[in-house]
Amino acid sequence: MLPPLFQLSACIVSLLLCGASWAATASPKNVILIIGDGFDDQHVTMGRNYLAGMSGTLILDGLSFRGAVQVETLSASGRPVYHADSANTATAIATGTITSIGRIGTDIADGDLPTIAERAIEAGLRVGLVTTSSITDATPASFLTHVSSRSCEGPEEILESTYFGLPQSTCPQDARQNNGPGSIIEQLCKSGAHVLFGGGQKFLSQITAAGESVRSLAEKNGFRVITAHGELSEIQTDQAIMGLFDTENLEVRWRGSDGRRAEPIETSWLHYLSDYLGEATQPELMDCEPNPAFATTPELALMTATALRHLSSNNSKGFFLMVESASIDKQSHKRNPCGSIGEIAQLEEALALALEFAGQHGDTLVIVTADHAQAAQIVPEPSSYSDYPIPIYSPGHTARLRTREGSVMRINYATNNGFSEEHTGANVPLFANRTDQELLKPFMKQRDLYHAIAAFLGLQSTEDLLKNLPKS
Amino acid sequence: MLPPLFQLSACIVSLLLCGASWAATASPKNVILIIGDGFDDQHVTMGRNYLAGMSGTLILDGLSFRGAVQVETLSASGRPVYHADSANTATAIATGTITSIGRIGTDIADGDLPTIAERAIEAGLRVGLVTTSSITDATPASFLTHVSSRSCEGPEEILESTYFGLPQSTCPQDARQNNGPGSIIEQLCKSGAHVLFGGGQKFLSQITAAGESVRSLAEKNGFRVITAHGELSEIQTDQAIMGLFDTENLEVRWRGSDGRRAEPIETSWLHYLSDYLGEATQPELMDCEPNPAFATTPELALMTATALRHLSSNNSKGFFLMVESASIDKQSHKRNPCGSIGEIAQLEEALALALEFAGQHGDTLVIVTADHAQAAQIVPEPSSYSDYPIPIYSPGHTARLRTREGSVMRINYATNNGFSEEHTGANVPLFANRTDQELLKPFMKQRDLYHAIAAFLGLQSTEDLLKNLPKS
Repeated sequence: MLPPLFQLSACIVSLLLCGASWAATASPKNVILIIGDGFDDQHVTMGRNYLAGMSGTLILDGLSFRGAVQVETLSASGRPVYHADSANTATAIATGTITSIGRIGTDIADGDLPTIAERAIEAGLRVGLVTTSSITDATPASFLTHVSSRSCEGPEEILESTYFGLPQSTCPQDARQNNGPGSIIEQLCKSGAHVLFGGGQKFLSQITAAGESVRSLAEKNGFRVITAHGELSEIQTDQAIMGLFDTENLEVRWRGSDGRRAEPIETSWLHYLSDYLGEATQPELMDCEPNPAFATTPELALMTATALRHLSSNNSKGFFLMVESASIDKQSHKRNPCGSIGEIAQLEEALALALEFAGQHGDTLVIVTADHAQAAQIVPEPSSYSDYPIPIYSPGHTARLRTREGSVMRINYATNNGFSEEHTGANVPLFANRTDQELLKPFMKQRDLYHAIAAFLGLQSTEDLLKNLPKS
Repeated sequence: MLPPLFQLSACIVSLLLCGASWAATASPKNVILIIGDGFDDQHVTMGRNYLAGMSGTLILDGLSFRGAVQVETLSASGRPVYHADSANTATAIATGTITSIGRIGTDIADGDLPTIAERAIEAGLRVGLVTTSSITDATPASFLTHVSSRSCEGPEEILESTYFGLPQSTCPQDARQNNGPGSIIEQLCKSGAHVLFGGGQKFLSQITAAGESVRSLAEKNGFRVITAHGELSEIQTDQAIMGLFDTENLEVRWRGSDGRRAEPIETSWLHYLSDYLGEATQPELMDCEPNPAFATTPELALMTATALRHLSSNNSKGFFLMVESASIDKQSHKRNPCGSIGEIAQLEEALALALEFAGQHGDTLVIVTADHAQAAQIVPEPSSYSDYPIPIYSPGHTARLRTREGSVMRINYATNNGFSEEHTGANVPLFANRTDQELLKPFMKQRDLYHAIAAFLGLQSTEDLLKNLPKS
């Protein structure tokens, strides 16, 4: 096996040389928005330490613009909330309006909010959504659909669904049975998008209230539906394409040695008698290794390259492409640092392609950001208090990861005692390939990204943009 | 009691109108470097949420430049380390060289590293260090002294000291008994600085190897020594001044209700039988209230205003001023969010003064950054998994803080089970009042800040600067 960075480089080079020969166009405006789900500064640094070393730099570190984005969330009754989920944050970016946790393209009064992708389609631009999650997951869904709850992914879930056994919010008012627009997948089928790549095959066989399968609904709306990434090269670029490459979310590239994740610390029996007695046994070191289940999964870079080719071919009007590396977050929930880092490597590869494209197409704005912060923290290895003659250890879960430069990076997950870590509330990073001051500010709200993208694509005048930006 | 933000405004206005009438000068170059110790994006957001609200902005959010700083640490043998302390990070900023944890102005081979402040003094500029820690603490010490261990603060500690009962590294080779330069406080006395404000009174009465008190050593080297902030107004601006206003670190402005900090979750007896049984009792809500012990402590803004007046009066050559809000970090170690937030409020007030000064003195570069990331995390209130019929809670310590806009911000501290939280390893924020691209990059290493400041102050040619900046 090649070291991961070489794999990455080889992959990018091969894509650039062979797969990604996008057509030159007459300078339409394009936006490529890359979202690292849960990709806060701890995760950015974790990725950098592993992929490039303590003193190394990621591709995104070389971007000419860097700032921070303020995450805003409302409670159902409109009070400020200091944490967020991917639904309300993606909705803020996609629509310019803040809303409550779990909502997709809707405000807290359940009003539908026009999205940047819908406005782009209306204006004749092409739209693509590419993700390593199910295409129906909160981030992609928020760019083209409107439901009151993220759990309403398919016709089977819209009136009844569970998560880890707990009944989830449903969307009766959105169901087609009640003359609503239908579930997320049904709305995606009718969205007018040109490219939809991700997971979510399981929805294709679900039957809508009209008695047809989702696959049939997609095809009726002009999509070529594919489920194996080998089919990607067979598709005509002017045909709308829905590529769903796994049952739900896509598999991730890496895992810890033998599938290990962060683990609880084991303490000796004496420690149960007193906090000051006994011993704590730290988890064994681990490496990141290829996840065997990833073998049949298309890389994010391959999906991105295909999307760029499809969106830009014979297109004089420009496009909006959202690319999500979704499992930085999902693997952090699962306390799997290698899972997250592999997704960061995938984000970097997609970014390299986006920048290559932008280099060839001058009017392309590339933005990288996160939706919300996440649980993982890089902590001292060993503990800064390891010299004390008492057992010092994380009360949560710990992974001790051997890095490629020969040191050990310790990752701490300790936001709760349960089966899944909690999101955290820090502002998130913002990177871009352009420094136009009228577009991007060093500190922006997530909803301002909507206005920035709309202004760049010519969907809104600069005057409107300035009017909508906060005074400060 | 006035709400905190009004206190802040009143304080700044009164300082600007009454105390801070600094003399106009013939445009010398000045640098004001503000370090928030442990002031990572979680803490920035925690401060913003409390002081300005979820959708509010801090003064630093309005600065025209924002980026991120890469933190680098070496082990004693030169291997990459993914966490840091205030000693090695301040040394990197002050000297342009990375080193190992605990080292002050020395490299891993124990060689003394010239600091930016020393070079400024050599060039005839004035230098000031202002901090809410002891003036001998790692951050200020790294700008003007050179010892192998941060614990060598005074002549009594240089050959023997303990921390929480554990013997600390000593600095025999630095001791004056062994013809070394002496402890940190002794080196500060002989540094040629114009202003030294902070805590550390206890060192004044310590006796040096030469048999004199530190106070006497300071006075012999031209310092007027004061210990009550009422004396600040009596000092002539052309006299070097050492103001030490507390025994060790300065008290902090705020504390939690009745002195409460983050607390462990209490679980019912049934929970000891199974992770899935019983109940978890969350800590009661708390507010931030004035810390009574702070009453006799000079505000960071008052010390900063005095320092600016002293450094700028009758000075045609410019100055370098380091201002540290030290207890963002120290209170995060102690799991006291109100302590940290009060220190963030103090940093904001000092920044307001720095920007006011820069507005009147065009050639003033104001930089705000952190030295390393810290433990606190903003987590969901209530837990995102609180609907599950099992007790979900943080395995660490939790504070539920009522904010001024009427919501609750939950802060999690869970990096270890001991008496003091651990630093974390994320890259840290960078803010500045200037966007000169030849000085500041969107992503810089801490050691590059040394070169940027030196270049701005004319201590190094731009060519040298560019040579020393990484290629990327």
